[in-house]
Amino acid sequence: MYGKTIDQLIDALRILPGVGIKSAQRMALQLLERDRAGAYRLAEAIEQAATNVGRCAQCRTLTEHELCEICNNPARSESQLCVVENPADLFAIEQAGGYRGKYFVLLGHLSPIDGVGPEQLGIDKLIERLQQQTISELILATNLTVEGEATAHFIADKARSLGVKVSRIAYGVPMGGELEYVDGGTLNMALQSRKIL
Amino acid sequence: MYGKTIDQLIDALRILPGVGIKSAQRMALQLLERDRAGAYRLAEAIEQAATNVGRCAQCRTLTEHELCEICNNPARSESQLCVVENPADLFAIEQAGGYRGKYFVLLGHLSPIDGVGPEQLGIDKLIERLQQQTISELILATNLTVEGEATAHFIADKARSLGVKVSRIAYGVPMGGELEYVDGGTLNMALQSRKIL
Repeated sequence: MYGKTIDQLIDALRILPGVGIKSAQRMALQLLERDRAGAYRLAEAIEQAATNVGRCAQCRTLTEHELCEICNNPARSESQLCVVENPADLFAIEQAGGYRGKYFVLLGHLSPIDGVGPEQLGIDKLIERLQQQTISELILATNLTVEGEATAHFIADKARSLGVKVSRIAYGVPMGGELEYVDGGTLNMALQSRKIL
Repeated sequence: MYGKTIDQLIDALRILPGVGIKSAQRMALQLLERDRAGAYRLAEAIEQAATNVGRCAQCRTLTEHELCEICNNPARSESQLCVVENPADLFAIEQAGGYRGKYFVLLGHLSPIDGVGPEQLGIDKLIERLQQQTISELILATNLTVEGEATAHFIADKARSLGVKVSRIAYGVPMGGELEYVDGGTLNMALQSRKIL
């Protein structure tokens, strides 16, 4: 109803996460009414990124180079390897700033029903890396969901059979979390995993 | 920190309304991880729209043609003319479905402090149209904000001096609105504008 070109733009904007029809309309009108230069810049940036960004040959995260900045950084320890589901998880850990090792990005989790098995997650590549390099600790930082847990257990079994030390990030009450508002599952886990002071 | 190309994409996405740094990151990663084809389609749609969409020569709304679909539609009454601030307002009225006349889009409101005067809003063009066509009623549907009100008053004065009948959309309690939750200003206006049954 906005005319063909604008309708197509609204439709295309809806592939963005969290953007429904109303937001897409607002975005389209804002781009066209107020910021044509920004619109061109955005179109260009999307195309550039879609064309140039691929996966890191070593850790599988998104990068425009052969190897990502972290894999390429000699200051990062080679002996710790942290396994995450997605680039977004990797960046979340990076922003937290407490980890100085390297990563391996699965780009998903085991989900046989969707046809996602160990191959799709590059687990053979991860095993190869565990065999070739001396990794002192494999840290499993997949999500604390059913699928993330299953994926972590699968990788843990494989890694232990190679004699690699495996750890899993801790469950518990989030920093600043009030017990009253934490769900029961988390609370039970936090009690079970309690530490002696 | 995501690498230059991805950072540029995140930055470019932030010109979209309501998109902050976190949403932009999520959007960028989603486009690159899951939907390259959608990313290309989006880039193409933005570029097409930014290049082809201009203003209707008659009513100033956004359109890819010389005249917009409404101005071009002989079934729409020429005798009623509705003045709105933005194309989004026009589309909102169209979606409500109760109006069968034509429109004039100001693309803003009077705001001397930002250098927006009658010329920027095309008010001379509106006056010309009032002089040339036989308009039985000019409906002012600018926003019910201070600036929208000032703009409406300015246009009303001009139109009345040309002998054109001018009306303003009603103030009042929204449909389904509960008085308890309506702000005081609206409530006072609704009382003042009460109708005898």
